Amino acid sequence: MMDDPALALRYEHVFDIRINFDRRWRTGAIHAGGPDHGYTSVGQGSTVSGPRLNGRLVDYSGADWPVIRTDGVIELNAHYMIEADDGSLIYIRNLGYVHGPLERPGKPTVDRYFRCTPYFRAPDGPHEWLNRTVIVGVGQRRPRQGPDGEADHSLFRYYAVL
Amino acid sequence: MMDDPALALRYEHVFDIRINFDRRWRTGAIHAGGPDHGYTSVGQGSTVSGPRLNGRLVDYSGADWPVIRTDGVIELNAHYMIEADDGSLIYIRNLGYVHGPLERPGKPTVDRYFRCTPYFRAPDGPHEWLNRTVIVGVGQRRPRQGPDGEADHSLFRYYAVL
Amino acid sequence: MMDDPALALRYEHVFDIRINFDRRWRTGAIHAGGPDHGYTSVGQGSTVSGPRLNGRLVDYSGADWPVIRTDGVIELNAHYMIEADDGSLIYIRNLGYVHGPLERPGKPTVDRYFRCTPYFRAPDGPHEWLNRTVIVGVGQRRPRQGPDGEADHSLFRYYAVL
Amino acid sequence: MMDDPALALRYEHVFDIRINFDRRWRTGAIHAGGPDHGYTSVGQGSTVSGPRLNGRLVDYSGADWPVIRTDGVIELNAHYMIEADDGSLIYIRNLGYVHGPLERPGKPTVDRYFRCTPYFRAPDGPHEWLNRTVIVGVGQRRPRQGPDGEADHSLFRYYAVL
Repeated sequence: MMDDPALALRYEHVFDIRINFDRRWRTGAIHAGGPDHGYTSVGQGSTVSGPRLNGRLVDYSGADWPVIRTDGVIELNAHYMIEADDGSLIYIRNLGYVHGPLERPGKPTVDRYFRCTPYFRAPDGPHEWLNRTVIVGVGQRRPRQGPDGEADHSLFRYYAVL
Repeated sequence: MMDDPALALRYEHVFDIRINFDRRWRTGAIHAGGPDHGYTSVGQGSTVSGPRLNGRLVDYSGADWPVIRTDGVIELNAHYMIEADDGSLIYIRNLGYVHGPLERPGKPTVDRYFRCTPYFRAPDGPHEWLNRTVIVGVGQRRPRQGPDGEADHSLFRYYAVL
Repeated sequence: MMDDPALALRYEHVFDIRINFDRRWRTGAIHAGGPDHGYTSVGQGSTVSGPRLNGRLVDYSGADWPVIRTDGVIELNAHYMIEADDGSLIYIRNLGYVHGPLERPGKPTVDRYFRCTPYFRAPDGPHEWLNRTVIVGVGQRRPRQGPDGEADHSLFRYYAVL
Repeated sequence: MMDDPALALRYEHVFDIRINFDRRWRTGAIHAGGPDHGYTSVGQGSTVSGPRLNGRLVDYSGADWPVIRTDGVIELNAHYMIEADDGSLIYIRNLGYVHGPLERPGKPTVDRYFRCTPYFRAPDGPHEWLNRTVIVGVGQRRPRQGPDGEADHSLFRYYAVL
């Protein structure tokens, strides 16, 4: 059974989302010893690019409202809007986990676990495949590298599960 | 049993939220004959006032991403941020139903069903009661009434279930 | 504005659900110092009765999977099935909060906070009002009172928000 | 950037779940022209096996409550309990999509899309990795093949996203 091709995980890269976050807040534990909550909002100039979808995030169209557990694991809970190049408006909500070594100024953060499972609502037409496809994301925080570096942002590479 | 006081519904008015929405979009049916989706974002100048909570909504802090069913019923799915007068940041997510007679320019919309059940995440302290209280909202869309009227907005009156 | 009748909370009692739970498990903290999880399954002989809905719960049709926070507050997360007297099958999912004084053998538990907001999926027909109505529940745990008392159960009185 | 190893999708097979479903109900459209709902409950004898987790599903411990869209796409919404070999009780909730060619008696259903993203709540200890790992599943319906064949069941192969 282990070599049944119908049970293999097959996937393809479909697009990347590069998010420029605006506000990054922690709002405080909900009770003494309890989990914290965060708020990380989508700013301006975020982009979507790749073989299956191109466009941008609608500026200030939403945020992540994560739970920050007392074991340090972050549970993502993001909601925002994509505008595709053809003008289609697409809702993305995103669940996932972030944990592991913290970000270090001036160093890439390749070893932080940042994985997610987005679900989409797209209008009927060229993007409707998003409404029936399981997608997995690999994320990476990219703090500014040096005074002349690119602005602080996060990058998500998305793979459709075939 | 019907007169068991422990099973009575008791409630008290806790606060009102007046929301000035920014964008009001419908994004199109997700498939032929399927439900539509909406996007209604929080704008500037929205307020929270009442006996148990006062403050404002954080400008552009989130939105409603409702499902608009083909029977006309709207299923709310809102996420945004409150900043209380003491600076506390509070996450609200809101489920509920809207349906019934459509809004008519120049007339109040008293007979539209617009009810919701918000859940909150507030930091430990004076607002932590929000993290353990069932709350019910009665909403009302208030389109501008005449050229000199108040801006188009929605009003939600919230009641804590005791 | 406070006396605007359109913003008043009006409600009516629609039905009661009496649940005989089967298993009552706590599964342990998800990490040191973290919240616990529970599992409380629907057993046999549970009933639905009232002015707007009558029937029974489908035996062993689901459960509550609550989060038990370290501040003692329980966040409900229940999913099970109702079979109405006309044979209609109705899905109920239920969110809410339980907290306060613990149950005491041989005493009523009138002062424990146990409130919830169920959402339903009913087939088109006489019960479709459940698909567009906000409903609030008042719950009560009723442990067996003495050796000849009724079996341990929970009672939920549900009110439609008009 | 396309060859950045930090953005590659890496995964490993962690376990399989073989579910013997009990009831398979469709409950009817929630309004004329609207989506249908289903109820597929976990029966007896379901197993969990693989390199990272072994055990069984708790008999009758939950169900899938899917939405069956009018375009034929099924949106999974499952909740049930695993009992690991060491006695740990683990909650699984599962989202995903099923669509494509229908099952044909006597033929394998290799070409039906059946993919999912489960999230788990396990107690602290050997299984706590489930509380912070994104997992993807590939499913397959396996109707009985001939009068002497194995009972009708579904198989899910799960992969941890590394």
